[in-house]
Amino acid sequence: MQIAIVLYPGFTALDFIGPYEVLRWLPDARVRFLWHEPGPITADSGVLVVAATHSFDETPSPDVILVPGGMTTTEHARDEKLLAWVRRAHSTATWTASVCSGSIILAAAGLLSGKRATSHWMALPALKAFGVTTIADERIVVSGDIVTCAGVSAGIDLGLWLAGRIGGEHRAKVIQLSLEYDPQPPFDSGHMSKASAKTKAAASALMAKDLATPSQLKAGALLLWDRAIGAARSRRG
Amino acid sequence: MQIAIVLYPGFTALDFIGPYEVLRWLPDARVRFLWHEPGPITADSGVLVVAATHSFDETPSPDVILVPGGMTTTEHARDEKLLAWVRRAHSTATWTASVCSGSIILAAAGLLSGKRATSHWMALPALKAFGVTTIADERIVVSGDIVTCAGVSAGIDLGLWLAGRIGGEHRAKVIQLSLEYDPQPPFDSGHMSKASAKTKAAASALMAKDLATPSQLKAGALLLWDRAIGAARSRRG
Repeated sequence: MQIAIVLYPGFTALDFIGPYEVLRWLPDARVRFLWHEPGPITADSGVLVVAATHSFDETPSPDVILVPGGMTTTEHARDEKLLAWVRRAHSTATWTASVCSGSIILAAAGLLSGKRATSHWMALPALKAFGVTTIADERIVVSGDIVTCAGVSAGIDLGLWLAGRIGGEHRAKVIQLSLEYDPQPPFDSGHMSKASAKTKAAASALMAKDLATPSQLKAGALLLWDRAIGAARSRRG
Repeated sequence: MQIAIVLYPGFTALDFIGPYEVLRWLPDARVRFLWHEPGPITADSGVLVVAATHSFDETPSPDVILVPGGMTTTEHARDEKLLAWVRRAHSTATWTASVCSGSIILAAAGLLSGKRATSHWMALPALKAFGVTTIADERIVVSGDIVTCAGVSAGIDLGLWLAGRIGGEHRAKVIQLSLEYDPQPPFDSGHMSKASAKTKAAASALMAKDLATPSQLKAGALLLWDRAIGAARSRRG
């Protein structure tokens, strides 16, 4: 079973390392990391470098597709070659999944129109602009063969859910014990419904520092333009 | 604040990506990934490659040290240059931490003698052989300025605990919300006290396949010899 994890410069590492660490323990799992060409790809932090092992062209028909989020997602959601690959690969994949703002790339590829999906809480408005029925209060949202989940750490839960569907509940439980995934967060501030107003404001400000760069703001605006023009063109004139 | 994350061939990625993703959001955090020399290091899975950005020699006095686990920990727990660096760096660090079987490297460096510490459940017997008071039922164990935690995914909880101590509870909660760390595992099998006998047996067998290779068995045996001879030599003759 081939599992294709999409990388791009500016990815958030935990988004895909969580599900990678789960899915790699499935029987016959063959994980590969994709980009336009194999080579080093730098994370949003600027200090972590992970290798893309294969190109999109080398990976025409994976069984599972996983798209992580990052601080540059809107920029890459306008990468036509990436979007074309996502569309084509999705047409033959068993499961297509995203973590965090990765769902914006699935939406930009046209996979989520009119469907229920989720994302990192900060990315939900952008996702909604694609005509997606955004779900803010479910950690994992299943729409047919597409599974999206909440931000960053939610990828572990998504990975285990997928492992249960692909390898059965027994195997998923075995993997959960192997990863000793018995979470005990020392605070209870991990969801917008649980965090204080002060925490929410500070978290928005913290992330905006990385997200509100000139290039990302421009990419976001262009993405909305693309979407609006596409919608206008698709109306009967 | 310099945060030094030790890498080695055969690391388990989630062990350090969890705390990395938390700690990098601390004010003035400067994260680096260490090995004998900068360059690509391959994970236990054989398909994930992460860059070591700095050498041990370039990093004499980090503020925080983090040692992850892996499938080759016992082998690297006999790397005298690594152990000497851990000892020296620990003497000036504010916090020294390990995730999963990374505590075996701290123990081999002599940091845990007679102290309370924990590890992945499969690594607890090896940790005990170093004269450590092993704790099987606490996810995070604090012994002065040394913090150890349970397997793989426990690194996220450890990261948040450390973030609270270093940056204060408000900052830690802000980071928790940024990572949307509101875990909802689809199964409840993440601890030895919760998993069924069948799950426990299968998880042990699954991990043993990677751990019980000839080179790892030899490394484990040699590590125990080192430890026994060291203890004999330290007795008054």
